[in-house]
Amino acid sequence: MTENKEMQSMDEEVTLFQSAKKVLVGGVCSSTRLNRATGQPFFARSGNGSRVLGYDNKEYIDCCCSHGAVLLGHNSPDVNQAIRKSLDMGTLCSYETEYHQEVARKICRLVPCAEKVRFTNSGTEATMHLLRACRAYTGKDKIIRFEGHFHGYHDYVYIGGHTPLDYLKSGNRVPYRESEGIPEEMTKYVISIPFNDTGILEKTIKKHRDQVACVILEPINYNSGCIVPSREYMKIMRGLTKENNILLFYDEIQSCFKIGAAGAQGYYGIIPDVCTLGKALGGGVPLSAMCGRKEIMDLFRPVGNVEHSGTFNAHLYSIMAANAFLDIIAKEDFYSKLEALCLKLHGGIECLLTRSQVKGRIQYLGARFGLFFGIDKEVTNYRESVEHDKGLMLRFIREMADRGVYFHDYGGSACHHGISIAHTQEDIDKILNASEDTLKVLQESK
Amino acid sequence: MTENKEMQSMDEEVTLFQSAKKVLVGGVCSSTRLNRATGQPFFARSGNGSRVLGYDNKEYIDCCCSHGAVLLGHNSPDVNQAIRKSLDMGTLCSYETEYHQEVARKICRLVPCAEKVRFTNSGTEATMHLLRACRAYTGKDKIIRFEGHFHGYHDYVYIGGHTPLDYLKSGNRVPYRESEGIPEEMTKYVISIPFNDTGILEKTIKKHRDQVACVILEPINYNSGCIVPSREYMKIMRGLTKENNILLFYDEIQSCFKIGAAGAQGYYGIIPDVCTLGKALGGGVPLSAMCGRKEIMDLFRPVGNVEHSGTFNAHLYSIMAANAFLDIIAKEDFYSKLEALCLKLHGGIECLLTRSQVKGRIQYLGARFGLFFGIDKEVTNYRESVEHDKGLMLRFIREMADRGVYFHDYGGSACHHGISIAHTQEDIDKILNASEDTLKVLQESK
Repeated sequence: MTENKEMQSMDEEVTLFQSAKKVLVGGVCSSTRLNRATGQPFFARSGNGSRVLGYDNKEYIDCCCSHGAVLLGHNSPDVNQAIRKSLDMGTLCSYETEYHQEVARKICRLVPCAEKVRFTNSGTEATMHLLRACRAYTGKDKIIRFEGHFHGYHDYVYIGGHTPLDYLKSGNRVPYRESEGIPEEMTKYVISIPFNDTGILEKTIKKHRDQVACVILEPINYNSGCIVPSREYMKIMRGLTKENNILLFYDEIQSCFKIGAAGAQGYYGIIPDVCTLGKALGGGVPLSAMCGRKEIMDLFRPVGNVEHSGTFNAHLYSIMAANAFLDIIAKEDFYSKLEALCLKLHGGIECLLTRSQVKGRIQYLGARFGLFFGIDKEVTNYRESVEHDKGLMLRFIREMADRGVYFHDYGGSACHHGISIAHTQEDIDKILNASEDTLKVLQESK
Repeated sequence: MTENKEMQSMDEEVTLFQSAKKVLVGGVCSSTRLNRATGQPFFARSGNGSRVLGYDNKEYIDCCCSHGAVLLGHNSPDVNQAIRKSLDMGTLCSYETEYHQEVARKICRLVPCAEKVRFTNSGTEATMHLLRACRAYTGKDKIIRFEGHFHGYHDYVYIGGHTPLDYLKSGNRVPYRESEGIPEEMTKYVISIPFNDTGILEKTIKKHRDQVACVILEPINYNSGCIVPSREYMKIMRGLTKENNILLFYDEIQSCFKIGAAGAQGYYGIIPDVCTLGKALGGGVPLSAMCGRKEIMDLFRPVGNVEHSGTFNAHLYSIMAANAFLDIIAKEDFYSKLEALCLKLHGGIECLLTRSQVKGRIQYLGARFGLFFGIDKEVTNYRESVEHDKGLMLRFIREMADRGVYFHDYGGSACHHGISIAHTQEDIDKILNASEDTLKVLQESK
């Protein structure tokens, strides 16, 4: 492409953003879709495999992968074919088919805690409805959650997650409301504590055991840049919750299928009472699931008396897509292939960071990883993660975009990035080359 | 089909339900999908136009129409083609395109209150996020809602909606929690009052004006069997909310596009501050929208400080489907054709009920209608609607299913049914013939 044409395309992207702002709040369909590093949301013409084509007519290697929803790459032929089959069957919204239970059966087979399943659209809906079942089961209303863990956007969990550092340091004990419009009294349902600290966990559970329905967590805390707790900590948590009549709720929306078909619960070999699955589950289309022990799940109507409904729940094409997805990840070589790609990428970035003068760190497990700039020792909780150099991270993302690699920015917080099975060894080489160049630029401009 | 084969098929349906129950709670993906009249959820092999093919290998004329999500009929060629185009573009989850704003622009053009738009998956998510913006805008936390109106399944609105009659009569003033697992204190955010009563509305608003963020309602109360308030009532409501710094929130998830492109707000000519759209909007695939005055909508991030995000928000294929849907309903003859079909159906059922000895009543507006058995005068609020003869309604639905017409049961409450633009005059004739036969059977067995 000539320079002029590229200029035109860049203009088109800017124009598109301007016109979007007139009808869509902030020009985006989701608050977090604005990338502060590029000053734009990503406007995509198309996606294919590891690549997304921007409206600037540049092809990017995608290290966002739809925030983790696309583990097979964009436009997976199998998922695509499955959706086309659902189209051939008609729209079929709100009716049951043999495929719905087929997907549920596969989940029960793969996910250790899953004795029964229900489907929802978003992860937000999944944690919301499953929390309701936890409350009904225990007869208690509060939750213990962890700083820096993310469980969707409803008011019960959008409190005490990503608390600003100055608020944490202020000593204010009321959990932080992460959005305007959340009633102040909602904070009383939430007990937010630091992750990865056995003493605090034990003290909190013992103090509040009579009010707490569940301990909810990302068993792999990708949302603070991939913090992996010790197996010992997870084991203690399992023991403490059991002893104190508190349900253990793994929110595996992000972790499911990223490290293996059995999710984080398979990785640790520690089984929660209930869990949510989502993101990758639908092969890139909207689907989440709630799973758990039979006696808890059976509280949902029409068996029990906890409501869970929705016209759009388990739309046929999401189900067909998930069905294809679950077949693909169940193939023998899927995770060995994914692991090889991840190893090359994560090891490569780690190596480049070590050799660079730019202070930085990668943390990873499975197909997602976190990058921390301005930090070089292990990040073990949210409070450490927010000490990262936000400006340097945004510069990294911007420079990478200039070099044809797309990283998403989540409002400046240290977060998660990732690849898909459709990424090739050559893609990884390109990401590493772009990273090397970018680190040099960052170093020189110090 | 021979009788034997039909027997086999019926067995298949029953077997399918049994096997579903092992992995899906209650054998369904949504609590309300169990039809108490048939004792089964509807297992569909395929859908096409006005018809759904069951696993019993019988073709049914669909009077459920995916609870109102399918206004173009199943398998609409235009929607289908739009989704195929989105597949050609790749999965494209969580990225913006030119089509997202195109759909938003069309909504702003069609829906009177829509100055800006945001998309969500389900209606539940739409009322939840928009309520958050209403709270942020007014700085107040409570809502006034109406008995028998439905606004989704989150805890803020699943209180005081479908309250059992004995609870209403008990004089207990604490709004009724419609599910287990909802904390008791959540009831303090909800003021639930009877619909269609100016005096009560005025008194309630004046008493609670300093705590109330919004009055939320179905402007056409389809969920109690299609109750259409007077224009005068709606006008007074508009005036009272404005005078008292309370936002007027039309939940048009069900009413949008059923009576015209401008929804109930176009029908009354009374414009709310904000509204939600859904169900039909996506042409049969999951999509909902929040719309409203610029100054309220712009409270959402990244412009304001109210969070609204989600990986699956505005998935490309939902957007493409909605784009096609909005083009179809904007065609000049769409609503005249729809109206003619509805007129024939509604007038026909009305005529049959009048001539039958079975006490019953139809109420309708646009493409949805309600049926009340055991009642023959106009139903003007929820308390009147719950006095209907549930047993007779379930028998009607069962007999109609035997005659190849599918009506959904929503747990025995008087609710809404409907048709699509794909229904033909012949379909309507068949529905009327089946209704006539069914009414005879009900009459004879009295």
